[in-house]
Amino acid sequence: MTYCVAAMIGAGMVFASDSRTNAGVDNVSTFRKMKIHEYPGERVIVILVSGNLGITQATLNTLDQAIRRSDGSPTLLNVRSMYEAAELLGNALRVIRQRDGPYLTQANVDGSANFLVGGQIAGEDQRLFQVYAEGNFIEATPDTPFLQIGETKYGKPILDRVINADTSMDDAVKCVLVSFDSTMRSNLSVGLPIDLVCYQKDSLRLTRVRRFDEQDPYMRNLRNQWGEGLRQAFAKLPPLHWGDQA
Amino acid sequence: MTYCVAAMIGAGMVFASDSRTNAGVDNVSTFRKMKIHEYPGERVIVILVSGNLGITQATLNTLDQAIRRSDGSPTLLNVRSMYEAAELLGNALRVIRQRDGPYLTQANVDGSANFLVGGQIAGEDQRLFQVYAEGNFIEATPDTPFLQIGETKYGKPILDRVINADTSMDDAVKCVLVSFDSTMRSNLSVGLPIDLVCYQKDSLRLTRVRRFDEQDPYMRNLRNQWGEGLRQAFAKLPPLHWGDQA
Repeated sequence: MTYCVAAMIGAGMVFASDSRTNAGVDNVSTFRKMKIHEYPGERVIVILVSGNLGITQATLNTLDQAIRRSDGSPTLLNVRSMYEAAELLGNALRVIRQRDGPYLTQANVDGSANFLVGGQIAGEDQRLFQVYAEGNFIEATPDTPFLQIGETKYGKPILDRVINADTSMDDAVKCVLVSFDSTMRSNLSVGLPIDLVCYQKDSLRLTRVRRFDEQDPYMRNLRNQWGEGLRQAFAKLPPLHWGDQA
Repeated sequence: MTYCVAAMIGAGMVFASDSRTNAGVDNVSTFRKMKIHEYPGERVIVILVSGNLGITQATLNTLDQAIRRSDGSPTLLNVRSMYEAAELLGNALRVIRQRDGPYLTQANVDGSANFLVGGQIAGEDQRLFQVYAEGNFIEATPDTPFLQIGETKYGKPILDRVINADTSMDDAVKCVLVSFDSTMRSNLSVGLPIDLVCYQKDSLRLTRVRRFDEQDPYMRNLRNQWGEGLRQAFAKLPPLHWGDQA
C-alpha cells in the first residue's frame, strides 16, 4: 500500500509520501514515491505515485526518457502549464498500461496506478492535479485544497478539520504529518520514511525537502505529543449520563 | 453505507450503529441497523448489520420466524452459546444469499452483508463475533477488543488508541461516539441517528439503550468539545524547524 498527500494552500503547497511497498506481506521494501522536477526560477513539478510499482516506475521513466531525447516533443521540461504536465503523465500512464496491462491481467495482478502532480510553471499560478488509473485527471480547487492517493481514509479526518485555503504553511506541514501518523498506526503497509516537500508559492524553486525516518526526533516528538494531546482531549469529554442506578 | 462498532471490554460491551441507508445518493433513508434479543436474566443478544438491506432484513426475519415457529429447531432463543448464535446467523445469511444472490448478480447489485453479533447467554461469558458475507465468522479476543463493519476506516484510529480490555464503560461509550463523529464528518453516507446499547457483563439484561439524533444535546456537545480539543492539541504541536531563511 501507499499513502500520499498534496495540499495546496494560499502560501504554497505541501507534498508528502510514505515509502513502503509490498508484494504480499512477506515482501516489504522501501521505495521513494516522490519524483521532483525542479528548474529553479522556471518550474517546480512534484509527482507522487501509488499503485503498481512496475507501472508507476515505467510511467515516470517514459517521461524522463522524453526529456533526455529532447527531440522537441512535449516533456515535463518544456510544457507551458501544469495542465499539460498532468496530460503528459496521464498519456504516459495509458501507454504503459496498454503495453503491460494484458500480461498483468493474465496473472490476476492489479496494474492500476494513481498520481498526484503539482507545482508551478513560470507564467501561471501553482496548480495541483490527481491523475486516475485510466489516465484522466482532476484539478484541486480552493474548495478541495488537498488530494490523497493510496490508503486515504485513516488520515483524512484531520485533513478535513485543518486544511483550507487560509491554513499556514507550518500548520499544513504539521497536519500532513499527523495524517501520516494516523495512517501508519492503522495500516502496517504504510510506513516510514516519509518524504516531505514544501513549495513556497511563486518561488519557482524548492528549498524545503526533508525525509523523516524512524529516528527523526521531530517526527517522534510530534507523534508522542499528538498522542498525548488526543488522550487529554478525550479525557476532558464529559461521560454520558444514563440516569439509571448502574 | 453503514457504520457499526461493537467493543468488548472487561466491564461489558458497547454496541452502536448508524441508521443511514442509500440506494444511490438520490435515495437516502433511515433504517435501524440494530436488532436486540433480550430475555432478562437469561440472555442478551445484539445484532448489528451492514450491507445489502434486503439481504440483512431477510436474514433477521428468517431468525425471527424460527423463533415464532418454535418447533424445537435451534433459534436465537434456545441456543446455549453465542457461538451457536453466530452459526445460526451465518447459516440464515447463506440461505438468503442462495435464494436472492443470482437475481442480484443478474442486476449487477452487490448482495453481500456483514453482521456483528454479541452478548451473553447464561452459563457462559460475554462474547462477540463478526459474521462475514460468506457466512463464516470470527470471534473478538482481548487482543482485538472491538470489531467494525461498514465504513470502518475513518473511525478506527481513535478506537485503536483508546479501546482495550481495561477501558472503562464510560470511556468506551465516549470513544465509540467520537469514532462515529469522525466517520460522519468524512462520509456523508453514514448518518444520525445513532443507536447505542451498553451491556454490563453478567447482568443478562439491557438497561442502557439510547438513540442519538441531530438534536441530542449530549452528542452535539461531544462533537463540539472533541473538535475544540483536537484544535487545541493540534495548536500545541511544535512547528517543523527547517533551518532556512524562508
